[in-house]
Amino acid sequence: MIHTISNIRVRYAETDRMDVVYHSNYLIWFETARILMLDQIGIPYLDIEARGLLLPVLTASAAYKRPARFDDRLEVHLYMRDKPRARFRFEYEVKRERELLATGTTTHGFMDKDGKGLRPPKDFLDKIETAWVHDITAIV
Amino acid sequence: MIHTISNIRVRYAETDRMDVVYHSNYLIWFETARILMLDQIGIPYLDIEARGLLLPVLTASAAYKRPARFDDRLEVHLYMRDKPRARFRFEYEVKRERELLATGTTTHGFMDKDGKGLRPPKDFLDKIETAWVHDITAIV
Amino acid sequence: MIHTISNIRVRYAETDRMDVVYHSNYLIWFETARILMLDQIGIPYLDIEARGLLLPVLTASAAYKRPARFDDRLEVHLYMRDKPRARFRFEYEVKRERELLATGTTTHGFMDKDGKGLRPPKDFLDKIETAWVHDITAIV
Amino acid sequence: MIHTISNIRVRYAETDRMDVVYHSNYLIWFETARILMLDQIGIPYLDIEARGLLLPVLTASAAYKRPARFDDRLEVHLYMRDKPRARFRFEYEVKRERELLATGTTTHGFMDKDGKGLRPPKDFLDKIETAWVHDITAIV
Repeated sequence: MIHTISNIRVRYAETDRMDVVYHSNYLIWFETARILMLDQIGIPYLDIEARGLLLPVLTASAAYKRPARFDDRLEVHLYMRDKPRARFRFEYEVKRERELLATGTTTHGFMDKDGKGLRPPKDFLDKIETAWVHDITAIV
Repeated sequence: MIHTISNIRVRYAETDRMDVVYHSNYLIWFETARILMLDQIGIPYLDIEARGLLLPVLTASAAYKRPARFDDRLEVHLYMRDKPRARFRFEYEVKRERELLATGTTTHGFMDKDGKGLRPPKDFLDKIETAWVHDITAIV
Repeated sequence: MIHTISNIRVRYAETDRMDVVYHSNYLIWFETARILMLDQIGIPYLDIEARGLLLPVLTASAAYKRPARFDDRLEVHLYMRDKPRARFRFEYEVKRERELLATGTTTHGFMDKDGKGLRPPKDFLDKIETAWVHDITAIV
Repeated sequence: MIHTISNIRVRYAETDRMDVVYHSNYLIWFETARILMLDQIGIPYLDIEARGLLLPVLTASAAYKRPARFDDRLEVHLYMRDKPRARFRFEYEVKRERELLATGTTTHGFMDKDGKGLRPPKDFLDKIETAWVHDITAIV
C-alpha cells in the first residue's frame, strides 16, 4: 500500500450558502492529493503529460459524512491499496483532526492524446513497486 | 419515474488543460438538473430552505465515458426512479446529442439547520406522487 | 456600439457562506456574455481558436454594488462601445430586473499560440463593422 | 505598510483549455492572501464573522502579464500600503520566482449582516497600527 497525507486549508470560495464546503470541491482536493502521491512516487504529473500521456478520471465517488467548513485545516489521506494494472484506483479520506468528514474513490486509466487507452509505462510500475513498501507522509 | 432534461452550454471556465471539461464540474451540472426537477415538481429549492430545511448531498458518483468540450451543448437527463422515503436518489446522464458522455448518481437526505436528519415533509411526498405519472421535459 | 444581453440563473455552487455569489464568479459570467456577443457578431470563439488565435484576458475589473443570490435570474449586459484596434474592450452590467448589482470591464488582445501579440484579423473587424449598427439582444 | 507572502501551487482544476490558469482564479488566490494577512495582523477572518461583521469585496481588478501554468509554485505578495479608514485597500503581485505574472487590487468595507456599512472596529485598527512597522513574511 502507498499512503500519503496532504493538507488543505478550506478557502472561502469553496464554501456555499449552506455554510459548508460545496461538495464538488472534494474532487479537486482528491486530485491535489493524487498529484502529491505521484510526486512522492517519482512520477510527477507534469512528466506524465510531457511524455504525451494523460491519466484522466474514469470514475469518481464521494460520501459526505460531516461538513467541512471555512478555514478548516483538513488532512486528505490517499491510499493506493492495489498495485495498478490497466487501471489506477485511489481511495480517499478527508479528516479534521480525528473526525472523518468524507471518503471517496477514483479510478484512472492511461490514454494517449487521441484518447486511446494504454497500459501504464513499465518505469511507472517499477517506481510504484519501489514505493510500495513505504508509508509516505507528505504535505502540500 | 420522474425525468427532466436540462440544457448546459459548456463554459470556458469549466475546461482544463487537457482540453476537456474538468471532472468535478459534472457535479455542479447535476445540481442544476436537480434544482430544475424540484422546480417542476413544485418544491423549489428556495422554498425548501425557506422552511428551515436543507437537502445536502450524502453521496455522489460519476462515470466519465467521453469528454465534454468547450462550447458543447449538452443535455443532462435526470431520473428519479424510486419514490423517496428517507432518502432521495437521483440518476444522471450527460449527453451530447445521442452520445452518452457520463452517468452519475447522488443521494440526499433532509436535515434541519442543526444537521439533524428529518423525513421528507408530507406535502413534498404528495407533490412527488402527483408528478410521478408525468415525464417532464424542461429546459434551463 | 454593440450590446448583448445574456441570462444567468445563479447556481448553488456560485454562492458562498456569506449567502451571496462569490465575487470571482462574475468574471465567469462576463466571459459567457463575451462568447455570446462574439457568436452574434459572427466570430464564434471556437472559430477563433480553430484559426490558431487566442483572445486572452489582459485586464479585468468589477465593482460589486448589491449582492446576487442563489437562484436569482440575472441579465448580463455587455457593451462594446469602441471599435477595437489592437485591443478589445468590453463593459458589463449585471442586473436583477431594474437593479444594478455589479459593473465590470475587461480588455483583450489577440495572440498566437506562442503568446505573440497580433492585430485582429481583418474579417473580424469587418464583421464588427457590420454588427455595429445593430443593438442585438440575445439569450444564452 | 504591511506585506505578506503566501505560496500557491497551481491546481489542475485551475487551468483551462488554453493551458493557462483561468483568470478568475487569481481573485481566489488574492482572497487566500488576504486571509493570511489578517491572520498575521491578529484579526482572523473567522473572528470578524463571529462578531457579526462581514468584509465583502467592493471592487476587484487584475492585470494579467504572463500566464501561470499547472503545477507552478507561485508567490502572492500582498501589500496594505494605506492605513484603512472606512475602506480597506489591498494590492497584489503574483510572482513565479522573479517573474511578475499578474497584479491586482481589491477594496473592502465592513458591513453588518443586514448590509449596513460600518467603520472598522477600533481594536482592528489598533492591531493594524501595531503590525504596520513589521514587514511580515508568512506562508500558507
